[in-house]
Amino acid sequence: MSSKFTLHPDRFFDPDENVRKIARILYQSVKDLPIVSPHGHVDPEILATNQPFPDPAELIIIPDHYIFRLLYSQGIPLEELGIPALDGSPVEKDHRKIWQRFADHFYLFAGTPTGVWLQHEFSEVFGIEEKLNSANAMRIYDVIQQKLQTPEFLPRTLFERFNIEVLTTTDGASDRLEFHRQILESGWQGKVIPCFRPDAAVNITAMNWKREIEALGEVCGFEITDYNRFIRAIEERRAFFKSMGAVSTDQGVVSPYTHRLSPQEADVIFQHALKGQATEDEASLFTANMLMEMARMSIEDSLVMQIHPGSFRNHNQYVYRKFGPDKGADIPLQTEYTRNLYELLNAYGNDPRLTLIVFTLDESTYSRELAPLAGHYPAMKLGPAWWFHDSIEGMTRFLQRVTETAGIYNTVGFNDDTRAFPSIPARHDLNRRINANFLAGKVARHIIEMDEALQMIHALTYDLVKQAYKL
Amino acid sequence: MSSKFTLHPDRFFDPDENVRKIARILYQSVKDLPIVSPHGHVDPEILATNQPFPDPAELIIIPDHYIFRLLYSQGIPLEELGIPALDGSPVEKDHRKIWQRFADHFYLFAGTPTGVWLQHEFSEVFGIEEKLNSANAMRIYDVIQQKLQTPEFLPRTLFERFNIEVLTTTDGASDRLEFHRQILESGWQGKVIPCFRPDAAVNITAMNWKREIEALGEVCGFEITDYNRFIRAIEERRAFFKSMGAVSTDQGVVSPYTHRLSPQEADVIFQHALKGQATEDEASLFTANMLMEMARMSIEDSLVMQIHPGSFRNHNQYVYRKFGPDKGADIPLQTEYTRNLYELLNAYGNDPRLTLIVFTLDESTYSRELAPLAGHYPAMKLGPAWWFHDSIEGMTRFLQRVTETAGIYNTVGFNDDTRAFPSIPARHDLNRRINANFLAGKVARHIIEMDEALQMIHALTYDLVKQAYKL
Amino acid sequence: MSSKFTLHPDRFFDPDENVRKIARILYQSVKDLPIVSPHGHVDPEILATNQPFPDPAELIIIPDHYIFRLLYSQGIPLEELGIPALDGSPVEKDHRKIWQRFADHFYLFAGTPTGVWLQHEFSEVFGIEEKLNSANAMRIYDVIQQKLQTPEFLPRTLFERFNIEVLTTTDGASDRLEFHRQILESGWQGKVIPCFRPDAAVNITAMNWKREIEALGEVCGFEITDYNRFIRAIEERRAFFKSMGAVSTDQGVVSPYTHRLSPQEADVIFQHALKGQATEDEASLFTANMLMEMARMSIEDSLVMQIHPGSFRNHNQYVYRKFGPDKGADIPLQTEYTRNLYELLNAYGNDPRLTLIVFTLDESTYSRELAPLAGHYPAMKLGPAWWFHDSIEGMTRFLQRVTETAGIYNTVGFNDDTRAFPSIPARHDLNRRINANFLAGKVARHIIEMDEALQMIHALTYDLVKQAYKL
Repeated sequence: MSSKFTLHPDRFFDPDENVRKIARILYQSVKDLPIVSPHGHVDPEILATNQPFPDPAELIIIPDHYIFRLLYSQGIPLEELGIPALDGSPVEKDHRKIWQRFADHFYLFAGTPTGVWLQHEFSEVFGIEEKLNSANAMRIYDVIQQKLQTPEFLPRTLFERFNIEVLTTTDGASDRLEFHRQILESGWQGKVIPCFRPDAAVNITAMNWKREIEALGEVCGFEITDYNRFIRAIEERRAFFKSMGAVSTDQGVVSPYTHRLSPQEADVIFQHALKGQATEDEASLFTANMLMEMARMSIEDSLVMQIHPGSFRNHNQYVYRKFGPDKGADIPLQTEYTRNLYELLNAYGNDPRLTLIVFTLDESTYSRELAPLAGHYPAMKLGPAWWFHDSIEGMTRFLQRVTETAGIYNTVGFNDDTRAFPSIPARHDLNRRINANFLAGKVARHIIEMDEALQMIHALTYDLVKQAYKL
Repeated sequence: MSSKFTLHPDRFFDPDENVRKIARILYQSVKDLPIVSPHGHVDPEILATNQPFPDPAELIIIPDHYIFRLLYSQGIPLEELGIPALDGSPVEKDHRKIWQRFADHFYLFAGTPTGVWLQHEFSEVFGIEEKLNSANAMRIYDVIQQKLQTPEFLPRTLFERFNIEVLTTTDGASDRLEFHRQILESGWQGKVIPCFRPDAAVNITAMNWKREIEALGEVCGFEITDYNRFIRAIEERRAFFKSMGAVSTDQGVVSPYTHRLSPQEADVIFQHALKGQATEDEASLFTANMLMEMARMSIEDSLVMQIHPGSFRNHNQYVYRKFGPDKGADIPLQTEYTRNLYELLNAYGNDPRLTLIVFTLDESTYSRELAPLAGHYPAMKLGPAWWFHDSIEGMTRFLQRVTETAGIYNTVGFNDDTRAFPSIPARHDLNRRINANFLAGKVARHIIEMDEALQMIHALTYDLVKQAYKL
Repeated sequence: MSSKFTLHPDRFFDPDENVRKIARILYQSVKDLPIVSPHGHVDPEILATNQPFPDPAELIIIPDHYIFRLLYSQGIPLEELGIPALDGSPVEKDHRKIWQRFADHFYLFAGTPTGVWLQHEFSEVFGIEEKLNSANAMRIYDVIQQKLQTPEFLPRTLFERFNIEVLTTTDGASDRLEFHRQILESGWQGKVIPCFRPDAAVNITAMNWKREIEALGEVCGFEITDYNRFIRAIEERRAFFKSMGAVSTDQGVVSPYTHRLSPQEADVIFQHALKGQATEDEASLFTANMLMEMARMSIEDSLVMQIHPGSFRNHNQYVYRKFGPDKGADIPLQTEYTRNLYELLNAYGNDPRLTLIVFTLDESTYSRELAPLAGHYPAMKLGPAWWFHDSIEGMTRFLQRVTETAGIYNTVGFNDDTRAFPSIPARHDLNRRINANFLAGKVARHIIEMDEALQMIHALTYDLVKQAYKL
């Protein structure tokens, strides 16, 4: 490995100078725009308490399933990476050892988005001019560790340095949003807003559903004994989230199937669920109905509706039972939108008050289903390339397959969707570069003109996300 | 927007000069070849009556769902675009206002095939050297309007200027082809031929099926009271279409499922249908059987058989009920070919008398199913990238994914598939440019040689379509 | 066609000089590495007997369904290409005529991988500096024919000249591996090892299953009268194959569905099968169970497990009945991995003793299912682009869609998978060039650095295949 390392100013641009020179201009025109992050998983506690990040392993490796899943795939036990076991069984406590293991295997990330983000993060956030390897691992650990103890690396200072205009977290229906309140009341100007994600309350066959319903009842001040009360609770919580700054909701569903149940039908299923007797078929119907209900509520309270379908969560039961969810074992599924969204779009898709942002992990649906739907229904917009596809090739495929049919104006700009707070600038920078390169290719092929491209990249970077999320 | 605008001579070619210089040569070698249009939806009345087109909005916006669907997706009501409502409720009648609205939103089409076609059409057909925008909208309207009143812009004159060798329309089974007869008898040399598309008679659960069966009986001169008479009617109409110049049939089906029913089984379903009692399952079986029958008839009468599967028609019921079909709300579906075409290909796929041209809206089938099937069965050929995929990226993906497995000689050249008569040259020109660029990339990478590329682009532009459609 | 033809040294590289100059360096660094062929279909008899290849048609056309399927698709009967009919009905015996027909249609292969391989083979193996065409067909036939009679073109000499380090064949469960034994005992140093593929014994509804079970019983020395004995037979044959040098097993399945049956359940199905009464559903369950069993055995005996799912074999029943299997009529199917592999991966996917190499013909699963699975489970690795996708565009798509999520280190290098012995160098060379070009693109876009790219191409060419297959 080369010891000296700097980020190339033309990185990710097409090697052809005809494209590259245009990409540079387009990128320059947006690179310093504020970051608008309308969907992600940063823990609000970080910004509420504004305490120093403990150490490099705790900051970068342990919370990031993008990183440790790839190490795990190569035979490194999660215990050796310090991932906490649910049963408290011993895992590596020496964070220097964890960091060394990571450095020893840093070559695995060559060509992956994680590798690209980490290099940006090391270089731009921590000023490290070496590529991580076995030999320099401890030296780099020390550099980061030292910086993390300085005021310049406190979370709020980084937030400002990152030029974040708004950061959205993702929060459960029963969450009291205490950290958001703490931020609001602190007098700090950083805008950190919640997003209402009621999955734990909607998924009636999930292990902890009953507990979530009780928690929901508690925060609402009434016991949730039937479907009507459940709906009322959801409505009240949406209102509360909105009062705390929320502009959107989100739902993770296995399938985007939408179907309205009568209140009576829904209550029959709800009663089964309360008794712990709901079947998987009932759970699917209940979710399908809740997508309809959430759309109805969005029309009423104007919160933007998001759907993230198609992930088979916790595919690896051994890892799930030992380490819990979000451990890199969520695997995408074939997903169908044309038939599944039929009922929702027929009921609400022509209503300009609804904004429905749809995501996918199934790239075959980009050109086949999603772009045609978004290119017709006024209410529907397309979320950006998600998760595994939030990458150089993945974003390029998204742009190539979606924009000819839907145009860019039925998309909503970028989501970083990250838990890894210090990676936020890297992710937005990568997206801006890929947009610049994509549009530069169109200018160089005389499909669009330069003035159009400048407008379009501004839209993709800033305007569309603000409009779509009503920010 | 730039006020001065001209089409770049190298548009759509790779920016790399090594590719571009080859693409130029290939494109030059075919750019002036006649247009052969073997499948499309131009109204034959236009060429039969040869009346001036009424005005720019009536010519370009109101009949083109590619255009108004994107405007609709951005919240512009179809009423404001002058789309006639079925119930006669009021819509915008001022075509200048419609044009202005279109111009105000012309930026939405940046990077879409519609945007690219329109620029070609404005520039090459109407000689406009500006890009349409809010400010110049009325001036451009006037320019087009004025030209439309001149003899140079009469439909037949444009047909000749466009260098169209043959134009195929799409016509229902009960159509008497009066406009085709009028053209034939007029002494005009333009070749405008019908294509036999019996969907309205085959789809037994469609709203107007009974009416179509009656109409079919009328043109045949006998009442269609059972399945045998239905088959006889279809055969007679095919013969009539053939006598009027038709060389092909076409079927739009939700699924390409093929399955032969016994005449008795088919008649049971047909009798249910006559009573208005056929189920969706029966309709699927009936269609599957009719695909078998149409293949059999093709072997007998040598009409080329086309299948266009996988569109969920009229997905937006509100739009369908208010404005009718073909309003930009047809959404593609996942489509399966390997199992679905099994029966048909086993019955007829080895018979050299059959030419079966298969289309798809599901790009995932290009390399997985369609190219392997066409690369084996003598009867099967692949239609070009269709509808949403009739675009720069779409045609490129088609070529990349199909030709390595099927070769180019199991494809059939280009279909413009358009209702928009003045966009025909734009569409063929775009296709020729993309073929040129695709083959130039192969020459530049030393996969094929220049003499092969010259043969191949001639085949893709002219020879294959003439051979496949027996023109 | 140009008469003079030489392979271009930069073939298949990006035309952009910035990429090409890097691709050249990367390719140079691996082009002379030995060929490791861990999966293929070369007949071991060729190397056991080391007899001269009979003639060009017999060597190149008749055994290669990649070639004759494309000729068949263009209407040339298989009889005219000398493909032996099962019923002994007459086929072309004049191999010069077959060769002439092939040459007359050689233009069909322009841009296909077969075309590219053949040009390499003609040029590099046979020293022919012309492109095959109708006029030179007989002259080229004579050149090849003459060379085949010389000692330099004996199979073992070619094996050594091709620099093959190891060549793996594919062999049925009841195969006595006599040719492998002959090679081992011959004193020749060439390494030719078997791979255990028990499809004929596992697929209980296949036409010849009963015969295979009897053959299996014979080689094992006990009658296979129940499921337990069947499992014991499989285990014994694996041990025998391993003793003969095998390092891997392989299974071709329609679906990769995995599911464990109890021994009692499995035996019920097995008894039905013995009576010729097993249903297709039972066959699916039996296969699903055998995938579980093969994984268990792999953990015990350390043979690497391969799965090749998703081919609809013998789609063309006419061709199958007349000419038998492997006649170019195997057509891919949509394939699902996330749910289907769930049971197997949950039972064995975390066990580092298992290496499970999964292939696909459904490219939509690369980024959606396969890369996320391989990027998590320690046991799972991804086989290279297979069959129709073993091509310039196909390998490029594989690399683009897989490596961002799984990294290259969860892939296993190249498989040539060929029956066409003299095409082996062409196939490996093509793969090395595409890898070089892919990595060069990443270097030129500053995604990875040159030292990383050099490591990665070495891994993709040599290290990964040796590690994955434990060679």
